Amino acid sequence: MNTVNVDDIDYRNFYRGRRVMVTGGLGFIGSNLARSLIDVGADVLLVDSLIPDYGGNLFNIDGIADRVRVNVADVREQSTMNYLVRDREIIFNLAGQVSHIDSLRDPYADLEINCRSQLTLLEACRYNNPGVKVVFAGTRQVYGRPDSLPVNESHLVRPTDINGINKAAGEYYHLVYNNVFRVRACSLRLTNVYGPRQLIRHNRQGFIGWFIRLAIEGATISVYGDGSQLRDFVFVDDAADAFLRAGANDACNGEVFNVGGDEPISHRRLTSLLIELAGSGRVSYTEWPAEKKAIDIGDFYADSSKFRRTTGWRASVPLREGLQRTLAFYREHFDRYVDPADRSAEPE
Amino acid sequence: MNTVNVDDIDYRNFYRGRRVMVTGGLGFIGSNLARSLIDVGADVLLVDSLIPDYGGNLFNIDGIADRVRVNVADVREQSTMNYLVRDREIIFNLAGQVSHIDSLRDPYADLEINCRSQLTLLEACRYNNPGVKVVFAGTRQVYGRPDSLPVNESHLVRPTDINGINKAAGEYYHLVYNNVFRVRACSLRLTNVYGPRQLIRHNRQGFIGWFIRLAIEGATISVYGDGSQLRDFVFVDDAADAFLRAGANDACNGEVFNVGGDEPISHRRLTSLLIELAGSGRVSYTEWPAEKKAIDIGDFYADSSKFRRTTGWRASVPLREGLQRTLAFYREHFDRYVDPADRSAEPE
Repeated sequence: MNTVNVDDIDYRNFYRGRRVMVTGGLGFIGSNLARSLIDVGADVLLVDSLIPDYGGNLFNIDGIADRVRVNVADVREQSTMNYLVRDREIIFNLAGQVSHIDSLRDPYADLEINCRSQLTLLEACRYNNPGVKVVFAGTRQVYGRPDSLPVNESHLVRPTDINGINKAAGEYYHLVYNNVFRVRACSLRLTNVYGPRQLIRHNRQGFIGWFIRLAIEGATISVYGDGSQLRDFVFVDDAADAFLRAGANDACNGEVFNVGGDEPISHRRLTSLLIELAGSGRVSYTEWPAEKKAIDIGDFYADSSKFRRTTGWRASVPLREGLQRTLAFYREHFDRYVDPADRSAEPE
Repeated sequence: MNTVNVDDIDYRNFYRGRRVMVTGGLGFIGSNLARSLIDVGADVLLVDSLIPDYGGNLFNIDGIADRVRVNVADVREQSTMNYLVRDREIIFNLAGQVSHIDSLRDPYADLEINCRSQLTLLEACRYNNPGVKVVFAGTRQVYGRPDSLPVNESHLVRPTDINGINKAAGEYYHLVYNNVFRVRACSLRLTNVYGPRQLIRHNRQGFIGWFIRLAIEGATISVYGDGSQLRDFVFVDDAADAFLRAGANDACNGEVFNVGGDEPISHRRLTSLLIELAGSGRVSYTEWPAEKKAIDIGDFYADSSKFRRTTGWRASVPLREGLQRTLAFYREHFDRYVDPADRSAEPE
C-alpha cells in the first residue's frame, strides 16, 4: 500500500510508548510482530520458553535485540506470568505448540501448552492486571474440513486433530474472560502464515516453510495427492499488522476474526511458483501418509471480510513478492535456521 | 410408550452379557443408566471417584449393588484407566464436574476433570482397547446463548463459561479419536436432565434438582429475572435410554446429537407446576446475581430430531409425570440426599 490513511496512522500511533508483551516472542510471528512494534515505538517485552523444536530462535531478533527485553519463561508457569503481566497494557499471546502430528503423538503436551497455558495467562491477567488487552493467535485449524468456501466465522468449529481442539479451547477461554471477567480479549484465526524467521529445521510445523527450505536446497518437494488442494497464505508482515490493528481496537473485543490471504492457490501452482522463484527444487506427487490423511482438511481458504470491516486490515503483500522476500531471507541466513549437519537428505 | 417395536428389542438385546463400563457410574445419570443396563442383562462396571460434592452417592445403586461391580477410581489416573478399559465393549463416559460457577472459581480443576480426563480415558482405549465403543455425555452448554430456537447440531459451539469450554474440548477429543484412531465414539449433548438420584445437597449443579428440593422443603424457590426464560427437560430414564441406543448403534459414531425434551417450558410455569405437584413451596422473583447473569444463555430448547432419525429415540416421560416420580423418590429417600443438619435455611 502506497497510500497512508488516517486510520493507519491512528493505530500505529496508539503504540508509541505503550507497554506491550508478546508470548512466543522469539518465534516466527512473534519476532516479526516485535519488529513492527519497535517500528511504532512500543516498549516491548518478549516472553519465550525457547523449548527446542518449537520455533523460538534468538537470531529472530537479530538487529532489534538491544531495543526489546527478552524474558525466558514458560507460559504454563503461573507465578511467573502473574509477575510479567502486571504492568503491561497489551499482550499478544502467541506462545504455542503448532505441530498437528506432534499433538496426536503426545496429546497431553499439546493440552498443557495450547490449552492449559491460556488459562495461566488469563488467570494472571484476571487477578493481576484486569485492565490489560489480550490478542490471541488462533488458527483456521479450528474449523476442520470446511462445509463450504470461503470459510467465514459462522462456520462450525470442528477440529480434525488434538492441536485444533486445544487451540479452540484456548481461544474460547479468551472470549469467556472477555465476557465474564472483563479482561478484554479477541482472537485472530490465522491461515497459513509464511515469511522470514519461521522454523524450517523440521517439517512438523506447517508445510510452507518446509517447501521453501527444500526449494532452496534444490531438493524434491513431496506434495500429497494430486496437488489440487487449495490454501490461502498470509505474509508475516501482514499478520503482524493484523495483530497491531486488533490490539489497538476495542471493537474487536470478545470477537474472533479470520485473517487470511485473498489469493487461494493450489499446492501444484504454489510449488511451481516457488521453484520458479528459487530457481531450484522439484516436485513429486506422492500418496497421502495415513497419519496425515486422517487429519487433512481438504481445500481451505478464509473469508477475512469481518476483520477488514472492523479494522481496515487487508493483506498487502502478494504471494509472489512474499515468497521472493522469504527466499532472499533464508538464502542469506540459512545456517541460522538449518543446522549444517542436518541438511535435507536429498541435496541436488 | 405401550407399543414395542423390533428396533427397541434389538438395541436392548444388544446388551445381554455385554461388558459395559460407566464412568461417573455412582452419579445421577450414571446410576440410572446402570439400572437400565442391569434390566437389559449387561455386565456392568461402575467407575466413580466419589469426590464429595460431585454427585456420586452409593445410595444411588441401592437395590442393584449386588448386580454391578463398583471400582472407586479417578478418571484422571492413566494407569488405572488403562487397566479398567481393557476388557470392556462399551464405555459410557459420564464422569465430570458439572458446576458452571465452580468452573469460573477454579478453572484448572474443571480443566483437569472435564477436559484432560477425557484424554486419559481415550488414550487408555487407544493403546489398550481400540475396539471399544465410547458414548460421551456432552452438554447443550457448549452452544452458549442460542442464535435461534430450537437449537440443532449445526448451531455454533460458543460456550459462555469455562465448564462449557472444557466439555466442548472433551467432546471434540472423542470425535478425533473416532476419526483418527478408530476408537468408535459419539457424544450426546444433553439438555436439562432431571429425576431421581440427582445431587440436591447444594445448588451448584443445575437448578432443577435444587428447585425440587426447595419445593419438598416448603421453602422459597428464587427465580432470576421474570421467569420467562425457556428450557427443555429430559427425564433421566429417557436419557438412559438415549445412551443405550447410542451405544448399540454404529451409525452414531463420530457424530454429536442433541438429546432434549420436546416440551419447552418457562421457569415461571415450571415452578408453578412443581409447587402444584409437591403441594408445598413458593416462588419469588429476584434480580440476577451478576456472576450468574454473565454466563446466562437466555432461552434454550433443543431440536433432537437428528438423534431420533438415527436411533428412533424419543422422550417418553412427560414433564408432569417425571416431576411426580421425582418428588415421590426424594420424599421417600430425602435423608439419603440431604444431610439432616443441612436443611434449607428457610423451612416452611
